[in-house]
Parts: sequence; structure tokens; C-alpha cells
Amino acid sequence: MNLLALECSAVAASCALLRDGELIAQSLLNVRSTHSQTLLPMTVSLLERVGLSVRDVDGFAVANGPGSFTGVRIGVSAVKGMALPGDKPCVGVSTLLAAALSHPYGDGYLCAAMDARCAQVYTALFSLQNGQATRLTPDRALSAETLCAELEALHADVTLVGDGAAVVAAQEACPPRAHLAPAPFRLQNAVGVARAAHTAFCAGETVSAEELMPVYLRLPQAERELKQRKGESV
Amino acid sequence: MNLLALECSAVAASCALLRDGELIAQSLLNVRSTHSQTLLPMTVSLLERVGLSVRDVDGFAVANGPGSFTGVRIGVSAVKGMALPGDKPCVGVSTLLAAALSHPYGDGYLCAAMDARCAQVYTALFSLQNGQATRLTPDRALSAETLCAELEALHADVTLVGDGAAVVAAQEACPPRAHLAPAPFRLQNAVGVARAAHTAFCAGETVSAEELMPVYLRLPQAERELKQRKGESV
Repeated sequence: MNLLALECSAVAASCALLRDGELIAQSLLNVRSTHSQTLLPMTVSLLERVGLSVRDVDGFAVANGPGSFTGVRIGVSAVKGMALPGDKPCVGVSTLLAAALSHPYGDGYLCAAMDARCAQVYTALFSLQNGQATRLTPDRALSAETLCAELEALHADVTLVGDGAAVVAAQEACPPRAHLAPAPFRLQNAVGVARAAHTAFCAGETVSAEELMPVYLRLPQAERELKQRKGESV
Repeated sequence: MNLLALECSAVAASCALLRDGELIAQSLLNVRSTHSQTLLPMTVSLLERVGLSVRDVDGFAVANGPGSFTGVRIGVSAVKGMALPGDKPCVGVSTLLAAALSHPYGDGYLCAAMDARCAQVYTALFSLQNGQATRLTPDRALSAETLCAELEALHADVTLVGDGAAVVAAQEACPPRAHLAPAPFRLQNAVGVARAAHTAFCAGETVSAEELMPVYLRLPQAERELKQRKGESV
């Protein structure tokens, strides 16, 4: 089975192809370019390198949030577009779970954090063992300060990953046992999306292209501001 | 500084671009294709995605062995070809060191092993801490059995990586504390080459395109057989 995974929830964009669970090809682009212009050409080029077209892909996966509203929407839309014509099954993967599975960090606690602006991070805590991730919290939007208090309460070493990891590490309250993952391996990528999706496909936990949706943990900024102007709670 | 790294010492081929030490782009192709046909198009396509041409690359790196004789020669030749016109500095990186640096394995011992055929592996032992690798042995060609005895004598957990890792793990004498790295993260790739080369470039340890050479730990099979026919030692 050919499983194509996309990740563009932050500045970097990446795609990965698994064949029966084995990593066949991957591409990553980590520059401030426009995902809407780079993601699909990079994906098509990856498929061409292994002699495939979009029609040969049996299932699609995408990091469907939390993350940049526009980035998540571009990734989800691209997968919807590719999956719809052939009615191919899809899997939406939490960006934070993808971050936990994108690299083989050693056993122990792992905290995935993405910069959510407005002094917040999107974050989730995982326990890693033998390359498998066990989720310890849901995906949440927290202040970096609250997250630091949570990490302190672990009384254990914890690896920080995701594009918000540096924001957390820069907090005065960040505990000394929280360590930033090495720079080239800090960001979530499509390999992590593909690994999570492979498990979901094996368990039959797929959705249709129509059912695939972004998962935002907060309202978009424009809607938050509108509600604030109306005096409603956000 | 734009640093372009190539890795094609075994079945997979990959390229990675670091800018001032930061990972900007990477591509990997893990199919039984011909590196001579896939490596350069993949590399040019990677550069195009970030708006660069080969002329914009300031330094080149390649896994120059040990590994497949043909693969190593293709990688070294490609870098020589790209570096020569502009007289750009080059770094040759041990394939086994690249394997140790390709992923952020947890702290502890790491054994890189590549299938050297003839019941041997190319192997080196490293100690990892905070994403840095300290070399504990030189690159050697050993029987898998001898390597297993060496790993047993560590009396410690050790992570097995490289395309020969499974060969080592399959040995009856392989100690129970030697663990295979998770499948998608077992193989050396160009990110590891680039990380090692970045350190070398910062230390000024570069060579010219003419000086860049493959490093083989054994004679090619044809030469070994010739020597055997002549009654010489191999």
C-alpha cells in the first residue's frame, strides 16, 4: 500500500511516501516560502522520482492541526483534492503527535509545542518507548508559563520538540530537566504524519476526503477579535 | 553559507542543504533505483525548490565510504563534478559517522553497521550525548560474529543503525541489550553527512575537489578475487 503524507502546519513543508510501512521517499523544504506554491510541486516531484502518479497512491494523510490556520488549511485542501477523484481513504493526524513521531528520540517524556502566538503554545505531552508514543495529555492551547509548571511537576527529563520548543525553553520558569531536541530534528515532518497514519490505516480508522477536516484549538484571530468587539467570551 | 550534502553509499540516496547550520531542505529516495540516474536530478530539484543553483553552493559534502563501491564512487564523483568548476571546498564524511548523526537517537552507545557482504560488516562504535557523537572505534570491516562479541563486552544498551543493523541483530550471538533503531530511522542519510560536514567546515577541515577520494576499507571484489587467484593475501 502506498501512503502519502503531507505536513505544512508551520514554516516548513514536507511530504513522505510509505510503502507497506517502509519509508520510500521524503522531501522537506524549510524556508519562508508559500506552501500553496511549493507543497504540490514538491509532492508531485517526489512521486515522479519513484515512478508513481497521484492515482497510484492508496491512502492520504495530513497533519490537520493544531498549527498555522493557513498552513493547516492548505495541507488539508491538497489532500482533499488528491483523494477526492479516486475516493481514497484519508487520515488526519494531530500535528503534535506527528512531532512526537517525526524522529527517534530516546525513551522518556516528550513535550511537543507549537508557537500559537498571543503568548500561548499548542502542546501535548507524550511518553516514548521503543519508538512508540503514548499520549499523556490531549492537544491543548496553554500559556508557556502554565506548560512550564506542568513540566516542572514531572520531576523528570523531558525533550522539547516542535516550532514552539524554543519559546518554551526561553521561559524563565522552564525547568532545567527540559531539553531542546537538536536543531535539525526539532520540527515535525511528514515522516511522523506517515507513521501515525500507517497505524490508523492498519486499524481501519480512516475518513473520506469530504470528512477530512482541519482541527483548530482556537478560533481564528479575526473571529476572536470580532467576538471581543462584541463583548463575547473567546 | 550553503552546504550541500549527498549520501548514496547503499540502496537509498539522499541530499540535504544546510544554511549556516540550519536544515533548509532534504530529499530521500529509498528504492532500488540507479543512483547515477536519480541522485543529480533529485539534487538539482532540491536546489531549485529553494531558488538556488549549483553555483550558489559554498561547500559540498559526501559520504565517501565505507559502503557500496559503486554508490560511494557515484556520490564522490557527483560532488567532484559540482565543486570543481568553482573550486569549492569539499568534505568527505565517514558513512558510519553519518549514520550516527542522521537521527537524534537517545544518549548512550550507538553501533553503525553496513552490510559488507562476504559475512562481514563495516562498523564503528559511537557514544552519543545531547545529539553529539564521540567516536569509540575507527571504521573497520569485521565479521558480524566478532562485532557481536564486542557489543556483548560493552555490558550496556546499544542502538543498532545502518543497512547492516538487521544483519547484526539476526546473529545468534547478538546480545539482548543491542536494539534495532525504529525502521524509518535506521538508515544513514544526507542530514547526518551535512551535520558532520558542518563541524568540519567550521574547523576549516576541507579538501579540494581533486583531493576528495572514496575511502574503502577493503579492496573491490574483483581485485580481491584476482589477488586470491594469484595466491596473494587479501
